[in-house]
Amino acid sequence: MRTLKLTIAYDGTNYVGWQRQTNGMSVQQAIEDAVAPLVDDAERRPGVAGASRTDAGVHAAAQVASVNLDVDLSTASLLRAINVRLPIDIRILQVEDAAPGFHARFHARGKSYRYRLARSVVMSPFDRAFAWHVPDLSDVGAMRHAASAFVGRHDFASFQARGSSTLDTVRTIGRLDIDERGDEVVVEIEGDGFLRHMVRAIVGTLVEVGSGLRAADTVPAILAERNRGAGGPTAPARGLMLIAVRY
Amino acid sequence: MRTLKLTIAYDGTNYVGWQRQTNGMSVQQAIEDAVAPLVDDAERRPGVAGASRTDAGVHAAAQVASVNLDVDLSTASLLRAINVRLPIDIRILQVEDAAPGFHARFHARGKSYRYRLARSVVMSPFDRAFAWHVPDLSDVGAMRHAASAFVGRHDFASFQARGSSTLDTVRTIGRLDIDERGDEVVVEIEGDGFLRHMVRAIVGTLVEVGSGLRAADTVPAILAERNRGAGGPTAPARGLMLIAVRY
Repeated sequence: MRTLKLTIAYDGTNYVGWQRQTNGMSVQQAIEDAVAPLVDDAERRPGVAGASRTDAGVHAAAQVASVNLDVDLSTASLLRAINVRLPIDIRILQVEDAAPGFHARFHARGKSYRYRLARSVVMSPFDRAFAWHVPDLSDVGAMRHAASAFVGRHDFASFQARGSSTLDTVRTIGRLDIDERGDEVVVEIEGDGFLRHMVRAIVGTLVEVGSGLRAADTVPAILAERNRGAGGPTAPARGLMLIAVRY
Repeated sequence: MRTLKLTIAYDGTNYVGWQRQTNGMSVQQAIEDAVAPLVDDAERRPGVAGASRTDAGVHAAAQVASVNLDVDLSTASLLRAINVRLPIDIRILQVEDAAPGFHARFHARGKSYRYRLARSVVMSPFDRAFAWHVPDLSDVGAMRHAASAFVGRHDFASFQARGSSTLDTVRTIGRLDIDERGDEVVVEIEGDGFLRHMVRAIVGTLVEVGSGLRAADTVPAILAERNRGAGGPTAPARGLMLIAVRY
């Protein structure tokens, strides 16, 4: 039995998210469906474990997944064999042999996400599935000031989706950069782990700051409240992209 | 009656092309449908004339169209009023008052197109509707050599779609640039006018040259044959984008 590490890019627009669900096609299920024919034993369908359980509509430039497979093919042949069975909005970028027991989620030490904010008066039709249109975003300096308060080790209970059952809500953010690229403001965040909707709740709060709807120095008070109602709205899924997983 | 100049961006993936057709939704029809409610006279539906009749699946960063409208709204209000009635894969970028009688197609003096060729081993899911995947394209120098033979005034009958009724097939290409941008090869072509499928037939021929399937110095002979069978295949629509119209 081999343990394989898959690096995967996907356009999340047409999926219910990474994780297998009953209400529609997930990225995980699409990959498991593509991998299953490679294994002789039809009784034992291999399970593919992803590092990040991205939400419906969220994209990935480099999701990482692990799978245990009893196959003799080279990694190059596996890459082709899986891709040919996948829809074109999901692509395996790389297949590598990993150490036995490697698990993409449990062994991940950190992840990076990018969120694109489009400030043009008219939203480009080419970015419509990949950015949030916020034409009134004007104070990037205030956003940077607010962003600095997220960096470090904090209790992020105020930035977790309502109804989440996760009890340990302390996470460490290593980096939160805000770059202006032409008409866009690009938020990049790196951390040891993220609660459900955490990146999107942070971005929603930063957009309120950048639009003049919230003071730049209120982040410490929001964190202290430990209440999802204290911060800004959850930014739309479509602007978010998983860009790297660190091991 | 005012004459308006519209600058339009669209993702052509879901359209039968620019021009109104009976077999599906065209970009022209979508815009005419969005403009019609702005005019009081329901009997006289304004016709929107586009500079380029882009094919099904071809995109535009800056198509130009003209329309005669009997409205009092400011150009800024018209921009909003049309966009709010359009699907999100079509956006009016600018509305301007034009000289009376301005016609986007008849008065165009030149157009520029861009064609994106993706050379990565695995095609990015984000480029799947915007580039042609040609992983074997290796000889960009040969493509540049072949490209130079297209520049100037030539009879392009060998690069016109079969069955076209256009008799005057002489056109002037002012510029044909081939740039390497990371994993991509980007072809940009500017000319006074283009026959049906002409850009895609030129790109299909250049790709054969760059893949070693055709010698770089054969373009003059292909042009001389005046026969569509002499050149390379018609490149897929999805890689093509209208980028500018010159007046």
